[in-house]
Amino acid sequence: MIGLRLYDYGPSPNCLKVRILLRLLGLQFDCVSIDILGGDTLTDSYAQVNPARRTPVLEVKEDRIVESNAIIWFLAESTSFLPSGPLERAQVLRWLLFELDRGEDIAALRFRIGVGTLDPDSEDARKRREAGRRGLDQLELALRSSQFLVGDGCTVADLANYAYVHVAPEAGLPLRPYPAILRWLAEIERQPGFVNDLEPLPENARIGAGLSIYG
Amino acid sequence: MIGLRLYDYGPSPNCLKVRILLRLLGLQFDCVSIDILGGDTLTDSYAQVNPARRTPVLEVKEDRIVESNAIIWFLAESTSFLPSGPLERAQVLRWLLFELDRGEDIAALRFRIGVGTLDPDSEDARKRREAGRRGLDQLELALRSSQFLVGDGCTVADLANYAYVHVAPEAGLPLRPYPAILRWLAEIERQPGFVNDLEPLPENARIGAGLSIYG
Repeated sequence: MIGLRLYDYGPSPNCLKVRILLRLLGLQFDCVSIDILGGDTLTDSYAQVNPARRTPVLEVKEDRIVESNAIIWFLAESTSFLPSGPLERAQVLRWLLFELDRGEDIAALRFRIGVGTLDPDSEDARKRREAGRRGLDQLELALRSSQFLVGDGCTVADLANYAYVHVAPEAGLPLRPYPAILRWLAEIERQPGFVNDLEPLPENARIGAGLSIYG
Repeated sequence: MIGLRLYDYGPSPNCLKVRILLRLLGLQFDCVSIDILGGDTLTDSYAQVNPARRTPVLEVKEDRIVESNAIIWFLAESTSFLPSGPLERAQVLRWLLFELDRGEDIAALRFRIGVGTLDPDSEDARKRREAGRRGLDQLELALRSSQFLVGDGCTVADLANYAYVHVAPEAGLPLRPYPAILRWLAEIERQPGFVNDLEPLPENARIGAGLSIYG
């Protein structure tokens, strides 16, 4: 595949999904670094790239794909990371939709606590943690009887959910109560070519480098 | 396709998506009516059908698919409602993910105002309407230059977004400011075999039958 360009933000788990898969597949890509907090998504030229002003965006020659889970689905076509049977593909899609729905709770908590716009002891934070926990409960249940989320191998269903689940402790959701999830995270990280280069939240973040990722 | 069973809730736009596509495709299906407010999703036997206790669920012989957008993707495989090219498929997926993300704002507003658990004048309602409007703005922008969301024909990207957008006025979001969306809704409703049998919100709802759908 030629002509891949990724508009990328280092500390974003959504962008991390794409970087992980590109490396697992051994694909070359141009990387355009977008500093969200520095205002890079607010320029007129970025509105041309993505009117929703979000990252990641993947350019494939003349075309652009937005939404991280649509990007990894596209990249995984005809590889082992996306099964070929219609039923298995529907299950992969189901977990991508689950991730958008449930990952959002963890994402918002982690980011807003991190940059100091949400008090971790507030009612809002408590409700979101509760929602995040319900999502983790569902994942744990699915992974108790199965090594990966769909079929026998690692698919984009796993990679998508990895992104926010592995940083759940930074959102105040420790993973110790979830042994199947911890086993599964380690399994994903053992895939040949796996690299996690998620950057820490920017300097104005309250939480720091001393935090244990799998707390 | 044989052995299709839909666990269905009449007033749910998510369930409506599946019913619309099944009829557009002329597929026979068993329909199991689930009265959510009557407690049907809270039984032990429904937890076996879907541990997340949501509708719709599609049974395909021995298998079950949850998440409305995963279900319609599955049903649309090898039909005109899902294009075959990888790039076009990624664009369809992108709009399914958009719908989950943005449709949720409209869904929550409509339901909670409808059953009286959210004051339409509250700060929470105002914020959600603002988010809903941003989603409608994005759709309008996309539909100004294109008859359907992806390619030249009606796809599951359109059907998924139809579900909540067509009831946006019930969430306090009139569609008059969105001419391209109104044109597109009518286009979808002209597809041969299209039936919209969305039931009104249940009797304990505040909003009534006198409401104009396209307000």
